[in-house]
Amino acid sequence: MQALGSELPNIAGDILERVRAKRPRVHCITNAVAQTYTANILLAAGAIPSMTIAPKEVTAFAQRADALLVNLGTFDAERQKASLAAIAAVNKLKKPWVLDPVFIDRSKPRAAFAKKLVAKSPRAIRLNQAEFEALAGAKFSERSLGQCAVKNRTVIGMTGEVDFVRDAKRNAIIDNGHPLMAKVTAMGCAGSAYLAACLSVENDPWLATVAALLVLGVAGEVAAERARGPGSFAIEMVDAMHNLDRATLRSKAKVN
Amino acid sequence: MQALGSELPNIAGDILERVRAKRPRVHCITNAVAQTYTANILLAAGAIPSMTIAPKEVTAFAQRADALLVNLGTFDAERQKASLAAIAAVNKLKKPWVLDPVFIDRSKPRAAFAKKLVAKSPRAIRLNQAEFEALAGAKFSERSLGQCAVKNRTVIGMTGEVDFVRDAKRNAIIDNGHPLMAKVTAMGCAGSAYLAACLSVENDPWLATVAALLVLGVAGEVAAERARGPGSFAIEMVDAMHNLDRATLRSKAKVN
Amino acid sequence: MQALGSELPNIAGDILERVRAKRPRVHCITNAVAQTYTANILLAAGAIPSMTIAPKEVTAFAQRADALLVNLGTFDAERQKASLAAIAAVNKLKKPWVLDPVFIDRSKPRAAFAKKLVAKSPRAIRLNQAEFEALAGAKFSERSLGQCAVKNRTVIGMTGEVDFVRDAKRNAIIDNGHPLMAKVTAMGCAGSAYLAACLSVENDPWLATVAALLVLGVAGEVAAERARGPGSFAIEMVDAMHNLDRATLRSKAKVN
Repeated sequence: MQALGSELPNIAGDILERVRAKRPRVHCITNAVAQTYTANILLAAGAIPSMTIAPKEVTAFAQRADALLVNLGTFDAERQKASLAAIAAVNKLKKPWVLDPVFIDRSKPRAAFAKKLVAKSPRAIRLNQAEFEALAGAKFSERSLGQCAVKNRTVIGMTGEVDFVRDAKRNAIIDNGHPLMAKVTAMGCAGSAYLAACLSVENDPWLATVAALLVLGVAGEVAAERARGPGSFAIEMVDAMHNLDRATLRSKAKVN
Repeated sequence: MQALGSELPNIAGDILERVRAKRPRVHCITNAVAQTYTANILLAAGAIPSMTIAPKEVTAFAQRADALLVNLGTFDAERQKASLAAIAAVNKLKKPWVLDPVFIDRSKPRAAFAKKLVAKSPRAIRLNQAEFEALAGAKFSERSLGQCAVKNRTVIGMTGEVDFVRDAKRNAIIDNGHPLMAKVTAMGCAGSAYLAACLSVENDPWLATVAALLVLGVAGEVAAERARGPGSFAIEMVDAMHNLDRATLRSKAKVN
Repeated sequence: MQALGSELPNIAGDILERVRAKRPRVHCITNAVAQTYTANILLAAGAIPSMTIAPKEVTAFAQRADALLVNLGTFDAERQKASLAAIAAVNKLKKPWVLDPVFIDRSKPRAAFAKKLVAKSPRAIRLNQAEFEALAGAKFSERSLGQCAVKNRTVIGMTGEVDFVRDAKRNAIIDNGHPLMAKVTAMGCAGSAYLAACLSVENDPWLATVAALLVLGVAGEVAAERARGPGSFAIEMVDAMHNLDRATLRSKAKVN
């Protein structure tokens, strides 16, 4: 791990540039509050967003996408059906998808639906500690995190003051980011969409998740240097995702 | 009134800080256009927004919230049902809720629904003059405003070039704010959400409403000093809500 | 054309100012991702947006509006019904409406619906090249563009690196704009809404479309001069739409 840890910023830099070069299509079934910011973060990062949930269209959009995001932040019947249709489409084509189980700690129906989706093999899950505990049915510890990753055969990216990225065998701890990231709605949701973009250019989902969270954390630090509050921070974050270069990523990355 | 008027900026400063300290949960049933900006204003002010309207969830979210906003700007069947469920939940727990009857002057079905909701005891109503006149069925005057507040046993915060805050006995006139506030979509809607946050930390709803509108007006003036147009103004407003301090509030407040 | 071409920046300046003076109501049936930005661009330009799609209300809102936008970016049953009702209302009153057939190149149901709407006489259609080809059933050329305009008796504003504005007899080519415009979600959608505003103050729909795309392109260039990435660009664009003056429009316009 330590040896690999020192390579992670370089690998993240590769993935950052591969997203820009490939311009992947990322289909997002996401909540109403997050749609616009998510689309703008994806565009800034070089990806191409689509967002339809219409029953007649969602399968076709998912089939042509390079990756899928399923975010549970707006929990209506139409999005639940659209999620199942889109997941079936990308699983058949072996394309990656990300689960972002927003607020499952506050809503039992969401938690039940999230568990159903976890059984459909998301390439990665991004969530916060409260959501992790609702999903795992256990208090967070490095052990419970590992057990959850093993049991569900996925990568878990748990974000917070420090981010943990865990698969069956590997763990990374990322100490980047800024408190203002928690003061902007949809920041985590947009990050999950960027993770989907990274999965479309990197077959190792653990590396893709480390890269996505590292890029987001460093971009957050760059943005915070220029921001005067959460309003300007949200805008600077979009610019930082657009402008971030490998040298900055390498110099600011704190990952083990 | 005059004597109290001189205390109002201090009281508003207290309420501003109490919101930041308590970090109240504010559940918002609001229109699609306003959701993101409303969430960002609440986060900037120190509150925690939630926005679900899903039938399976909305009661649970409302029950756990510290205050509720019902905004009629998107007038669909799902939001109408969600509003009734959420209001029932918070009324049972004696938690405050705010009504923002958007555009009831332009739509009779909305006006009828708004009147139904007014009978369910909103702690405060925030609206503009055209909406007030549709609700009151009378031209605006200080007299008709007072009558409407008495009849409905609520506080009315009517915003415009000058803001009026009226309950059965008291009236405040706030001469803060900036014309750019009318050039940003969802500014009023976000303000109503902040009013809900203030009601969760102050039992006197008239004081809470004066405080909310005073904070918003002064933040608008601070934001306008830095803005170059309505785009940058909207962003500066979020920063100003985050950064506003008691001294600035006191020095700029114009309330009688 | 050449002779008229030299007059177009002046005419666009007139139309820019007429929108500000008239403050037209523009009813927008548009996609969920674009609603907020569209409303803010309209407000910045001096127009008054409304966005309801509720069956009980949409006809009344359309009847009172000065122009209508129908954007297919969120393709749900409610918006399809609302579009048909709103178009019927404005056609009866001979008010202008704009069609923005978003992503019809990626979804056959949308393309079929768009063709149905084209038969209902939009005053103008704004789209990109891929959407044009899906609508026309032909590769883009100046000839196929002209044929499509003739056949459908409308104005086509096709935006891209260069914008084409075509009716049965006239063609304009606009060489303004900036690559960052393609990096902000809803930029085209908001532009179509502004086009609707221009149609409400100018009876010649070809002139109104040239004016709208010229104003948007020049505002994009002004915004890009100040922006540091797509986040700040989106904000600067709103400010630029608010602040643009005739002299800047004249000095930067590139239209033939």
